[in-house]
Amino acid sequence: MKNIAILGSTGSIGRNTLQIVENLSQKFRVVGLAAGRNLELFLKQVEKFRPKIVSLDRKEEAEKLEQRIKHSGLKVVSGQEGAEEVAGFEENDIVVSAITGIKGLRPTLAAVEGGKKIALANKESMVAAGPLIQSKLQKHEAQIIPVDSEHSGVFQCLAKEKRENIKKVILTASGGPFLHTPLEELKEKTREEALAHPRWKMGKKVTIDSATLMNKGLELIEARWLFDLEPSQLGILIHPQSIVHSLVELKDGSVLAQLSPTDMKIPIQYALTYPERENTRLPSLGLSQIKKLEFLDVEDEKFPLVRLAFKALEEGESIPVALNAANEVVVEAFLNGEINFSEISVLVGEVVENHQKSDVKSLEDILEVDRETRAQTRNIMKKRL
Amino acid sequence: MKNIAILGSTGSIGRNTLQIVENLSQKFRVVGLAAGRNLELFLKQVEKFRPKIVSLDRKEEAEKLEQRIKHSGLKVVSGQEGAEEVAGFEENDIVVSAITGIKGLRPTLAAVEGGKKIALANKESMVAAGPLIQSKLQKHEAQIIPVDSEHSGVFQCLAKEKRENIKKVILTASGGPFLHTPLEELKEKTREEALAHPRWKMGKKVTIDSATLMNKGLELIEARWLFDLEPSQLGILIHPQSIVHSLVELKDGSVLAQLSPTDMKIPIQYALTYPERENTRLPSLGLSQIKKLEFLDVEDEKFPLVRLAFKALEEGESIPVALNAANEVVVEAFLNGEINFSEISVLVGEVVENHQKSDVKSLEDILEVDRETRAQTRNIMKKRL
Repeated sequence: MKNIAILGSTGSIGRNTLQIVENLSQKFRVVGLAAGRNLELFLKQVEKFRPKIVSLDRKEEAEKLEQRIKHSGLKVVSGQEGAEEVAGFEENDIVVSAITGIKGLRPTLAAVEGGKKIALANKESMVAAGPLIQSKLQKHEAQIIPVDSEHSGVFQCLAKEKRENIKKVILTASGGPFLHTPLEELKEKTREEALAHPRWKMGKKVTIDSATLMNKGLELIEARWLFDLEPSQLGILIHPQSIVHSLVELKDGSVLAQLSPTDMKIPIQYALTYPERENTRLPSLGLSQIKKLEFLDVEDEKFPLVRLAFKALEEGESIPVALNAANEVVVEAFLNGEINFSEISVLVGEVVENHQKSDVKSLEDILEVDRETRAQTRNIMKKRL
Repeated sequence: MKNIAILGSTGSIGRNTLQIVENLSQKFRVVGLAAGRNLELFLKQVEKFRPKIVSLDRKEEAEKLEQRIKHSGLKVVSGQEGAEEVAGFEENDIVVSAITGIKGLRPTLAAVEGGKKIALANKESMVAAGPLIQSKLQKHEAQIIPVDSEHSGVFQCLAKEKRENIKKVILTASGGPFLHTPLEELKEKTREEALAHPRWKMGKKVTIDSATLMNKGLELIEARWLFDLEPSQLGILIHPQSIVHSLVELKDGSVLAQLSPTDMKIPIQYALTYPERENTRLPSLGLSQIKKLEFLDVEDEKFPLVRLAFKALEEGESIPVALNAANEVVVEAFLNGEINFSEISVLVGEVVENHQKSDVKSLEDILEVDRETRAQTRNIMKKRL
C-alpha cells in the first residue's frame, strides 16, 4: 500500500488521479490533498478519500472546510505554505504535483526535499527551475516520474537505453484547434474556440498553451532537464491524431515510440505504479480503426512561440523563467477576454526580447525573475491596450 | 573485440553483416563463414575477411576454394556438418544464423549447444523447433537476439518490461507487392512481379513469403517462442510504409513501438552490438517527409496463409514443421515456374490439412516430419499438375 498526496486535486489531473486511486484501492491510499478555490468539489473529495492533511489556497475557505467536515483527525492548512506542508507530509510515498503554473514550484520543491517519488504534471516548475530541481533530486534521493503524456512516453522508451545512445528525442503536438486555421484568421479566434481542443480534455491554461503550441515549447524545456539532454537533441513533430506521444531516436537509427489512446489516465497511472503496470480498463488502441497517423513539421510563422521556446532552451539562465512568467500572465489575460489570440505570442515575444538575462541559482532568484517579469508583462499589456 | 561466424554469408543478411563488420572493424572480427553455392562471392569474402574456418555446401566446391585460397591456416569444411562445425567453432562469440529454410536448423542448434550468442535470422528453425531450441538455450547458456526487423523491434520495446505486463505483440507486414491486387488477379502474377517487393530488398524465398504473407505467419510462430507468448497474445497489422516494425501493447493500454528506415543493417547491427548501440551512418527517419503511416487489417481471403499460420500456432506439435516444409517446397516450385502464385496457398493449405499431427520432441522427430511432408507435398503437386 502506497500513500499518495495530490497537489491540485480539483484540477483535471487531480480528478483523474483520484479515479485511478479508486480503481486501485488495494494499492494506493490518499493521505494528502491540496487545491485552489473549488471548495465544493474539494469537500466531496475530502469526505470520500479521508486524507490526513488538506490545504486550500485561501485561509477563509480552509476554515469553512474545517467547520463542514464530519470526520475528525484531519489537519487543515492553507496557502502556499499549506500546499508545501501537504507535499512534504511525512507519510507520503508519492506526491502528484499537478498545480498549474509557477505556483506549483514551491510545493514541488517541498516534495523533492522530502525525498518523495514525484509524479510531475506541473511542467512550469521544471521549466523555471530545472537545474535547481535536478541538483536537489540527487541530494534528497527523490525521484521524478513524468505525467505529461509526451514525457511519460520518452520515459517508457528510454527504459534501459544509455544516455550516450540517444540521438534525438521528439515530442509530438496535436497542433491544437488552429492547426489548419489560416494565419490571418488567428486573431479573430475566441476564447471558446481556443478552448475546444480536438484531442485532449485538459485544464484551461494548458488548453490555451496547446492552441499556441507554447505547451510544446514548455515541454521541450521540461524534457531537457528531465532527461538530461542537450537542446540540439530535442525536436517537435505535429501529429494531429495524438496517438504517438513521443519518439526517441537512437544512434543506430532505430526509433522507439510510445503510443496510446488519448486518455491521461494512462500516463498518470504509470507514474504511480512505475516500475509496475496495472490494468486501466481502457479499450485497446486499435490502429486499424484509426487507419493513419500523420506527421508534419511546425509552421514557425503561425506558431512563433515554439521558436521562442527553442531560443529560451538554448540560452537558458533566466530566459525560461521569463518566458513562462510572461506566458502565464498573457494567457490569463486572454482567458479574461482582455487580448485577442494573436496577441498572446506577440506579447510573450516582446517581454522575452526585452528581458535582461541573468543567472538564476536559487529559488529566490527564480521567484524574483518571475515577479519582475509578471509586472513587466502587465506594463507592456497596459501600454498596448 | 568480438569474434563472429556468419552462416549464410553470401545471402542478403550475410552480405549486410559483412558490411557492418567492415564499418565496425575495431569491435568485430570474422572468424567463420559458411555459404551455399556462390563460390565466386564466397572466395572474395574469404580473401577479404580472412576467417579461420569456412564451409561450402558441396564438397567439390570446398575443394576448389581450398586450391584457390592464397593464405594459409584456413580450415575448409563442407556440407551440413561443415556449417555445424563453423557454428560451433570454439573461438566464436557471436553466430549470425542466416541460412534460409529448415537447412539452417542444425547449424543453429550447433551454435546453441556451443553456448554462443546467436543473431538469429533463420526464422524457419524457430518455427519448426521452437520448444527444443528454447530448452537448449537455458541448458547451454546460449542467447538469441532476433535479426528479423519485427522481432528486433519487439526485443527493443520489451527492454525491462515484465512478461506479465504484456497484453499483445503486434508484428507489422508491408502487405508485399500484391496488397492492392484484386483477389481474382493473383493467380496471373508472375515470378518477377512477386519478387518485386515494394519496401525491402531480401532473398528470393523470403520475398515470395512476403508476397503471400506467409513470412508474417512464420514470424508469428517465431515470436511465440522467442518471447514466450501465448498464441492469443500475437497479432498482425498491415502497414504499407514498413516504418513501424512491431508494437507491444502493455496491460495499462500503453503501446511501445519500434520504427526505423527499411534497412536491415539496423536490426542486424543491433543484434551484434546489443546491449550497446553503434552509429550505422544511415540517414534519420524523417517522419515529416514520410508524412503518414497507415495501418490495415489483413484480408484473410486474399492471404489465407496467415490464418493457416495462426492455426498452426495454436495447434502446435508437428503442425508448424509441416507448414514450413510444405511452404518451402511449394515456394521453390513457384520460383521454378512450376505453379502459379495462387497455387502456393492452395497447396500449402492442402498439405497442412492432410497432415497427421504428432508430437515432436527431438531434432530427429522434427527432421522426420520435415522429410515426410516434403515428399507428400511433391506428391500432391504431381497429382495436381
